[in-house]
Order: sequence, then structure tokens, then C-alpha cells
Amino acid sequence: MYRSRIKNETLWSKVVSPQQAAMLIRDGMVVGMSGFTRAGEAKAVPMALADRALAGEPLGITLITGASLGNDLDKTLAEAKVTRRRMPFQADPTLRKEINAGNVMFVDQHLSETVELLRSGQLGPLDVAIVEAVAITENGGIIPTTSVGNSATFAMLAEKVIVEINITMGEEMEGLHDIYIPTRRPYREPIPVVDTRSRVGLPYIPVDPSRIAAIVITDKKDSTAKIEPPDHETKAIANHLIGFLDNEVKRGRLGLNLAPLQAGIGSIANAVLHGFGDSHFHDLTMYSEVLQDSTFDLFDCGKLTYASGSSITLSADKHESVLRNINKYKSRLILRPQEISNHPEVIRRLGLIAINTALEADIYGNVNSTHVMGSQMMNGIGGSGDFARNAYLSVFVTKSVAKGGRISSIVPMVTHVDHCEHDVDIIVTEQGLADLRNLAPRERAKVVIANCVHPSYRDEIADYVAEATRTVGGQTPHMLDKAFFLHQRLRDQGSMQPVAATQAAE
Amino acid sequence: MYRSRIKNETLWSKVVSPQQAAMLIRDGMVVGMSGFTRAGEAKAVPMALADRALAGEPLGITLITGASLGNDLDKTLAEAKVTRRRMPFQADPTLRKEINAGNVMFVDQHLSETVELLRSGQLGPLDVAIVEAVAITENGGIIPTTSVGNSATFAMLAEKVIVEINITMGEEMEGLHDIYIPTRRPYREPIPVVDTRSRVGLPYIPVDPSRIAAIVITDKKDSTAKIEPPDHETKAIANHLIGFLDNEVKRGRLGLNLAPLQAGIGSIANAVLHGFGDSHFHDLTMYSEVLQDSTFDLFDCGKLTYASGSSITLSADKHESVLRNINKYKSRLILRPQEISNHPEVIRRLGLIAINTALEADIYGNVNSTHVMGSQMMNGIGGSGDFARNAYLSVFVTKSVAKGGRISSIVPMVTHVDHCEHDVDIIVTEQGLADLRNLAPRERAKVVIANCVHPSYRDEIADYVAEATRTVGGQTPHMLDKAFFLHQRLRDQGSMQPVAATQAAE
Repeated sequence: MYRSRIKNETLWSKVVSPQQAAMLIRDGMVVGMSGFTRAGEAKAVPMALADRALAGEPLGITLITGASLGNDLDKTLAEAKVTRRRMPFQADPTLRKEINAGNVMFVDQHLSETVELLRSGQLGPLDVAIVEAVAITENGGIIPTTSVGNSATFAMLAEKVIVEINITMGEEMEGLHDIYIPTRRPYREPIPVVDTRSRVGLPYIPVDPSRIAAIVITDKKDSTAKIEPPDHETKAIANHLIGFLDNEVKRGRLGLNLAPLQAGIGSIANAVLHGFGDSHFHDLTMYSEVLQDSTFDLFDCGKLTYASGSSITLSADKHESVLRNINKYKSRLILRPQEISNHPEVIRRLGLIAINTALEADIYGNVNSTHVMGSQMMNGIGGSGDFARNAYLSVFVTKSVAKGGRISSIVPMVTHVDHCEHDVDIIVTEQGLADLRNLAPRERAKVVIANCVHPSYRDEIADYVAEATRTVGGQTPHMLDKAFFLHQRLRDQGSMQPVAATQAAE
Repeated sequence: MYRSRIKNETLWSKVVSPQQAAMLIRDGMVVGMSGFTRAGEAKAVPMALADRALAGEPLGITLITGASLGNDLDKTLAEAKVTRRRMPFQADPTLRKEINAGNVMFVDQHLSETVELLRSGQLGPLDVAIVEAVAITENGGIIPTTSVGNSATFAMLAEKVIVEINITMGEEMEGLHDIYIPTRRPYREPIPVVDTRSRVGLPYIPVDPSRIAAIVITDKKDSTAKIEPPDHETKAIANHLIGFLDNEVKRGRLGLNLAPLQAGIGSIANAVLHGFGDSHFHDLTMYSEVLQDSTFDLFDCGKLTYASGSSITLSADKHESVLRNINKYKSRLILRPQEISNHPEVIRRLGLIAINTALEADIYGNVNSTHVMGSQMMNGIGGSGDFARNAYLSVFVTKSVAKGGRISSIVPMVTHVDHCEHDVDIIVTEQGLADLRNLAPRERAKVVIANCVHPSYRDEIADYVAEATRTVGGQTPHMLDKAFFLHQRLRDQGSMQPVAATQAAE
């Protein structure tokens, strides 16, 4: 039955069990696996690897993916100690613990850059690629499933290719993907994407069939995403941003179709996108990396005309209704390699409005996307740097406080910088919006404190700036022994609130 | 006599004195002036502005340029309090003092981005452009002098254009420039530059002659640059980098012509480029922003085949010999708008080796290019972010210590981040070279401490990391109350050295 999915008959003999396919992978290898934002990851072979390691075989690999994996794969591989080195992104609590303990070396990379390193031989060589597919075409082309990620380059560069054909993925997904891989430098041509809708490549990953070493048949589904529904605060964030964009339209800088939208993964960005459903903007387009529930809701309510991404990651509610009805969306949808969805060249050319989530932001406009208290890795920078640096408008959203008010998301100085002040145009919390464009740092601090900081932290942070300005001065006034005073208080007292306030609240 | 420089006769009547031309500029205006790395700035009209302000007229402007200005213009305009807001870069001690005192609002921008903001109406409108020129063509085209910078976009967007024809600049400069301006989003086409040599635009800035409101004739030369000759340490830095690149060639990642080189302004980068003159690399090319003495020395010794930049900034020694003999170099030389010389799209496509100077770097690979002690602005980020983020190989160079050893250029945590760990591949000091590619932060720290830190700081910084790893752990171990301990010591004791060591040295 699965043979209808392998249109090149010479490949039928390559169908093996996951265990047999996994035998192609040995200790010390560099392995590239499909998977981006818990979508379209190879599901069977990695489990077989974990089983071997758990059975006592020394088996550690460098694992490169598109982005995060679903089906607890990063957990399973970390627990089995198969993952020794990991790049370019992850979002698993167990793996995160191993990374922060220094047991797994995690190389946190811009999502557009990993394959540049592989292609130029600065990373690798890649021993094995494992790519989930809907089907294999007659000429050996691999049709990806719900994500493209780095799969195309993995398959083109790896010494051996393992294909996992997932029979739960409908064959009607064929035609969804657009596989374009930039030519090698120094002879690279411009990437011909000039519009969200541009189709510039093939609907499959071109691979010489002789390089496909094994094929595995699987029937495990993608994990579904847990997306928090919009709440009072995320709705306020959406409203502030929509109000701002409204004003940009009034000033003639944008039309009512705005500019292609990018939204980072997670509940806040998803809620912001939902907000566009109730706005008077129309004929919107997306040029993003992950397409979440909100993308399809915007399609369904007629606000969105076209969406380009590298993966589709849906909640349990949406999963079946979208994937079973993919034909309904296919003419308005495109999945690209993450190198193209996140390419600085294309992002700058199209002039995106990029909306990403800050872990913390500081009063001068620097953003921390990755490190809790400057040391502990959360997930990784992902594509936020690709987008924020090159967008027409770079927006960061966050609730002003976390952990019931014990943490202020806006601080005097972020403990780790992923996005420097030069790359952040707009900061939005439920308190309000700070438009930092063309402001000097001293001016930025005023606007961020007035508009974004939670009232319970506003005075203390304003006092910090006033004292730093008076005693130290400079373009960006900071007192180096006090810059992290809120973080130190959190570490010592369990809250960034002053002791009196904390006690009063208890 | 100057009339031969104005080939459109209808414009002869526009020739006025600098004072008359300056009357087009009024209090509160936004003014765009030519000038990039002290080359090709408008020289006469700004002085007339300063005179008016010094005579008591209220006259403050927002001053936008390409980059830094020569002829003490930023000093003169700051002293006269003409400069109220300034972007995107400066390098003048007097202006710097006003910025750090909070008297001038300085908006520090990526050099490729300023005109995107202007073009999209997020900055401006631009009231007046003042552009230095060699000549004006019959159709009103402005032929720039030693820099292109942002002049083309200024002239195309400003309500009124003032041209300063500098008769000390030889007419043989015609043909040196390549003016290509990206089309407006959302209909932007790929930028057709696919090679250092690509000529894709016009040899002049196209302007409707009716928009030229005044023409001024000047005879003031560009300031010359003070470039420190290579010393023992900058030679060591060059040798470490050349040894590294040699190894990349041996490993087949690069050919002996390497990849197009970019080098930041300043003595260290200049010395590193000089180092290539003694290497066995050949047929080198440059795709850079400023072309300094070293570019022409590399031409003269036959190592360099082509150079593309946005300006030519030379020492007193080189100035005459290059500009008087520009025909000798013209077929191998091109000056582009800074938006193109620094464009992420082109930099990523060409696969540059980018060599920039760090003010300080930290053990995890973050780089501070702008802020002394986290607060005081030096010059600005300039083009370093455009290049470091998008280069094939991003190199930062610095001497390991400054101020006679009292400052370590490598610190546990930089006090300001311009280039995050994701954008820094290689750090080089005279001590050695740290190859940070594909390393996790804990691994980076080991290599940077072993290879780059000055021996007099090595143990203390290693102790910091060991303690942070033991007590805090994480992906990037940091103790927030000690991360700036070297800076605090410098502030309190005048040196980052421990007291005992400082006394012993005295």
C-alpha cells in the first residue's frame, strides 16, 4: 500500500525497518533531521537510535535540525544521551536542562545560517540526513510534509539519505512546497523571490535516487501545539499594535493591506495575529517561518490572501481541520526552506512587519530572546534575528510582568542581548506601545518607561535612569554596579519587587 | 572657469555664495549632507550655517550624513549648536562630548538602513540635501567626489538640493561611481550586484535640474586620515589571521583568492590588510565601505584585482598620489551608495570575509563596538553590523589590552552589545586567534581565554568563568553581580589590574 507513495520503483527495495535504517548512524556522526517548530520531524529512526543507546551502545551524535522537534524527540534523545551537540534551536525542557548543565553543547544559531555553514564546509560534513516525506517522486524527489526547514540542504549534502514516509500525511500536500536552494558562492545569483506568492523552485527536494540509502514507513502524527487563547493582556497588546499600524496607514506610510507579516511562535504573537481578524485591515499577506492557528483563522475570516512559511504548526483543535482540508488552502499557501523564509535578502526586499516575542527588553531597546537571568538558555534565538534586523518594521511584544508580577519584563539592562537597540523599532506590552524609531537612547528610555513598564516597576526604573544620567551620563546612561539590580533582587528574594511591596502583596 | 563643471547651462544661474545657499536652511529642518569616513563631505555651506548660528540666529537642525565628516565640520557644527539631532554615525571628539552630555541626540544606525527609513517616510521628510560634486552633467546628474554615502538618496528625496562643486577634485573621477538605488517596496527587484565588479547603475546621481536650488563652488580638500603605521602587535594580529586563512585554504574551504574582503576603518584593520601584501594569497578583491591606504598599496603590489567601496579615505602621504592618478586605478575601482556597499542582500550573496575592530569583546563572543564602559558613545556601530551579520566569515580584531595594559579588551561580559555571539566567528588579538564557529558558549570561553586574553588577565578571567560555571551554570555562565568586575575596578582604581599588580607595575 505504501508503494503508491514511492513512485520510483527501484527504491522499493530500500524500504526497511526504523531499526535497520538507524544502523546507518554510528557514534560520532553528524546527522541532519527534518523538523521545524514541532512539524514534520523524522519520527521513527530517532527513536530507534535512542533505543540502541539505552541498550548500552555508545552512540552520541551532533544533531542538526530545522528548529524544534515534536513527539518528545529532543527529550528522548537527550535522556538516552544520543544528543551530544545540538543546533540550531530547541524547545524541550529535558534537553534544556542538559544544555544548561553543560552536558549537551548547544550552538544557538540564526535559523537562516546553519545551511550556509554546512554548504561552505564550515560545519560538517553531514553523514546522514533523515527527512520525513509525503512521498517520493519518480525521479527520486522527496516531497516534505508539514515543514521544509533545512531538509532540502540536508538531503542534498548528506552522504546518506534516509526518508521516512509518513502515511498519515495526505498526498494532496504535493504542490505545497517550493524548494529553492541558493547557488554556491562566489557564483550566487539573486534569490528570485520578489513577492510572498513567488514560486521559484521545485515542489520536491531533488535527490539522486542512488543517494537514498533507506526508506522507513511511519504513521505517527505531528505533535499538536499548546496555544494559550488570547487573554485580556494579549488582547491589549494586539490593540496597541493595531492602533499604531492604523496611525501608520493614516500617515500614508502603509496601505490597508499593510506589509507582509511575520509572527514568531507562541501565544502572544498568535494572539496579536488574531487581533488582525477584528481590524479593518484587509488583503493581508504573511511571509513568516511558522504558520500557526491564527494564519488559518485569518484565511477563514477572509483577512489573509496569501501565506508563506517554512512549517505549519497547529493546535489539536485546528490540526485535523486544516490538514484534512489542505486543498482548501493550498492555492494560498507555500512552504519554503527556512533559509528562504528567513533570508535577509528576501526579508529586506519584501519589507516585512516582523512581530516577535521578547523574553525581556530593556529601557534602551535591547532585547533578550534566549537567556533567563543571563545564563540559563530557554529555546534559542530562532529566526527572530533574521527578521528583526531586516524587517521594514521590527516589533517586539511581551507582557510587562511575568510570574504574577514578580518579574518585570522591562529592565534597565537586559542580561543577554540577542537584538541590539539598532534592530528594535517598536516595543509593545499590555501597558502600551513605545515607538523607538529615530530616537536616541535617552529618549527611548523615557518612552519605554512611560508606555511599556508595569506601574509597579515604573518609578524604580525611572529613578535608575535619573541617577545613571546624573552620575554617569553618556549616550546610554548605565551604572554598572546597579544595572542588574532587579535581577539580583529576583535571585536573592524571589521577586523583582522591593521587599516591602512583596510583603504587602503576600 | 567652473562653468566647464556645470554642463547644463540652465544651471549656471544657480551659482551662489555658500552664505546664499545656506539661506535655504532654516531652524528645525532635516538636512542630508554628503560625506562618508571624512571623504566627500559638503564643505562650504555647513560652515556658513555655523557662522549664522554663532552670530546669534536660532538655527538647529537634524543632520543626517553618510558617516563621519572631515574638515572638523562636526566639531564646528556642534560648537555652534547647529546640530541638534545627528545620525547615523560620527567620529568627532567635540560632537562626542555633546552627545554624551545629552545635548545632541545621536541616533546610531546601521549604515545601510538610514535611507530605508527616509524612503519609507519613517524618517524625514528631508528638507535640504547638500552634496559635494565633481561636476553636473548636461541632464542635471550629480557626479560625486570621494564618497557616495547616502548622497544619491538625499538628492533624490530632498525638497531642495544644493550642490557644492569642488574644483580641487579632478574631473577624471567621472566614471568611478556606480549609482544604483533599490526600487520602492513592495515592488523591489533583486539588487543585481553579483560580483565585486558588477556595475549596475549610472555614473552620476540622477536629479531633475529644476530640483537643484543652488550651486556653490569650493576648493577645500578632504581631510587626510591619521593612520598609525603597523606595529609589533597589529602585525601579530595580521599574522594570526593570515595563518588561519591559510589553513582554511588548505582545508579546501577557500581558494588563494580568498573571498571579497571588507575591512573596517582604523589602524588595526588597515594593518591587517597590509599584512595580505606579504602573504601568498593573490587576485584578492574587496567589497568594503571605506577604501584606505592599504587598498591602494595592495593594488600597487599586485595583490588586489578589484575594489568596491563607498568612499576613499587616505593619509596625507597617499592622498595626492592616489587622487592625482585616479585614472591608474579607475578600471579596478568602484564607489557605490553605502546602502549597496553595506546591503545585507549583497554581502550575504558575495560571501565576504569581514574584518572589523572591536572596542571590547567578551569571552562568549559578544562584541561592543560603540560604548566605553557601557555608557559613553565613541563613534557608532557604522557598517560593522551590516557586515558581521551577513558575512561568510565575521572577524573581529583588537589588541588584547589598551592604555598601557590598564584595560583588557577581552572581558567576562561586554558592557554594551553591538554584535551578539551569533554574529562573531573569529576573534583575533596579538595573543592569538579564537575560532568560535560551531562552538557552544562554554567552549567559546575556553578558546577566547586561552588564545586571545592578555596573560596578565588570563587567570582572573578563567577564575570568573570557573566560579560562574560552578555556582550559576547555564548555557552562558555569568554571575550578575561580578560580570563587570573588571570595569568596576577600572572605574574605581583607574585600572582593570588588581591593586597589587597595579602597584607593582608603578
